[in-house]
Amino acid sequence: MIGLRRLVLANRPRGVPDTSCFAIEAAMPAEPGAGEVAVAVTHVSIDPAMRGWMTDMPSYMPPVAIGETMRAFDAGKIIASTVADWPEGTLVTGLLGAQDRAIVKADTLRRVPQGALPADALGIVGVTGMTAFFGFFDVGQPVAGDTVVVTGAGGAVGSTVVQLARLAGCRAIAIVDRPEKIDWLAELGAETVIDQSAEGWHREARTATRGGIDILFDGVGGEVLDTLLWSIAERARVVLCGAISQYNSDRATGPGSYVAAITRRARMEGFLLQDYRDHYDFAEARLAQWVADGKLGQRSTLYHGLEALPEAIAAMFDGGNIGKTIVTLPSALDIAAQM
Amino acid sequence: MIGLRRLVLANRPRGVPDTSCFAIEAAMPAEPGAGEVAVAVTHVSIDPAMRGWMTDMPSYMPPVAIGETMRAFDAGKIIASTVADWPEGTLVTGLLGAQDRAIVKADTLRRVPQGALPADALGIVGVTGMTAFFGFFDVGQPVAGDTVVVTGAGGAVGSTVVQLARLAGCRAIAIVDRPEKIDWLAELGAETVIDQSAEGWHREARTATRGGIDILFDGVGGEVLDTLLWSIAERARVVLCGAISQYNSDRATGPGSYVAAITRRARMEGFLLQDYRDHYDFAEARLAQWVADGKLGQRSTLYHGLEALPEAIAAMFDGGNIGKTIVTLPSALDIAAQM
Repeated sequence: MIGLRRLVLANRPRGVPDTSCFAIEAAMPAEPGAGEVAVAVTHVSIDPAMRGWMTDMPSYMPPVAIGETMRAFDAGKIIASTVADWPEGTLVTGLLGAQDRAIVKADTLRRVPQGALPADALGIVGVTGMTAFFGFFDVGQPVAGDTVVVTGAGGAVGSTVVQLARLAGCRAIAIVDRPEKIDWLAELGAETVIDQSAEGWHREARTATRGGIDILFDGVGGEVLDTLLWSIAERARVVLCGAISQYNSDRATGPGSYVAAITRRARMEGFLLQDYRDHYDFAEARLAQWVADGKLGQRSTLYHGLEALPEAIAAMFDGGNIGKTIVTLPSALDIAAQM
Repeated sequence: MIGLRRLVLANRPRGVPDTSCFAIEAAMPAEPGAGEVAVAVTHVSIDPAMRGWMTDMPSYMPPVAIGETMRAFDAGKIIASTVADWPEGTLVTGLLGAQDRAIVKADTLRRVPQGALPADALGIVGVTGMTAFFGFFDVGQPVAGDTVVVTGAGGAVGSTVVQLARLAGCRAIAIVDRPEKIDWLAELGAETVIDQSAEGWHREARTATRGGIDILFDGVGGEVLDTLLWSIAERARVVLCGAISQYNSDRATGPGSYVAAITRRARMEGFLLQDYRDHYDFAEARLAQWVADGKLGQRSTLYHGLEALPEAIAAMFDGGNIGKTIVTLPSALDIAAQM
């Protein structure tokens, strides 16, 4: 068996993160202190937010320091505990980092919901599902019949929002960055799927949104956002979830079309999942029920092993991912073998 | 006496509107029909919104057609009426156009409040005061102690917002475009006044807003907005009132710094005064009381005569205006003479 390892940030990225940004280091087993548990990480979540954590700009979380374990959301299993409520064997999710083993405060963890797969607890009923849930329902304030446009619709959050829009009685228009994502989004219930890499997509988008966009759920920014904002309806809600097209450039480009928000009395609003902490259980229960009922699903792009992390992260910014991107670690196999 | 005249839109502007955009035409006296009144216009309000009305882009109001009377808010006096509630002699404000006489539906008018000057009814207790009022209180949602940054603070709406911020117990930082506006804004209660034409204003703004901007009231857009958005606080409200720096360019530039709104969970929201129609009386009463109490005031830039309108409009986009810009028409003198 390979010893314990962790992925550390070796260099800050210029542009798209590549393998030179990371190094794999041996890690020493450690024992949990008071209030802590040791977790064997089984699944590492790859998220667009990682790009921001890799810069040296303080934001809603401090930057990952050079030489420090790369920050990541993970799923795993408690293998040692000092906390009665969090016994060995409990399946959990949390901000455990890109490593085989993590020592964390138990009160920062969430339990994998009864009956859910660890990958789903990280995805559709976890961080990405809840991001979609709160962004769409709380910031977007949907009304049945609304026209909802989702950018980055082939990603984990975007593909969930498309499905939530359908569940809320809205008309969903999905914007994807590659033709191979089109069929999948149509299956998820998007009324129209538009490939932003195709010539003439602006025209297609204008036609599909002729009555005005009521909710624009944006994780992409850049030219895509700029184009779509011209088509917002009066009182539109623009949910600012991310700007993945901008994360790798030195200087973000803003949408000139924001001026449409003035006369159309539209609202553009950012949000962070962590602000909804008190409502996680509510969202999780709804999401889990929809998954159980077969009304909500998620495709995944899977990678295996810590050494695949840099490639998985790079692919996220390259449009190479479909749905939720997850890297499984060897512990997943160990644990599966014991089940 | 010169006959009745009106200013018509002769050509759509490219860039800053100039005299070639307008023509002055003779107008025929007309009699009001059922439900209508004839108004002798005394004061024409010059507003940034005029630039948008001159384009051929449909927006919240249809474009002014070539050859049609230029749209404008005005104050005036009813000189003929078919409506018992709106007798001759009533001082009114309304969208009467850039002309000596207007025939309008009486129900589109507002009375000049008791004791107010017609110019104030158009300005501080009228369209501009109410725009500031609803934008600041309803969209901005101030909390005493907030740091409020106002761009275009030397303009009619901006200078009112600075005063409202002070009345609401907030800290006001005023951004002006010319050094000669600095002292006035300081007198109005701005804690810091920054001249965006001065070298190093970015640094000055960063220092003044170190704790984060809670409310950014923006009528300017462009580089000014782009710079300031980087300094918004968590949960900031960015009130999108206008984008005067962009109105004369073919292609609006958006603020790349809008990405700060994502992680800071900020809201950028546009509004239009006309949506608050049901609340005009409330705002007018508050504003009039503050004016009467000497807590709220307005400087004006005055022009005289219909032929001065093109110059007054151009100056609005050139930073040449201080406070409220108004063009008085000869009727003002006629009416003053009869008082």
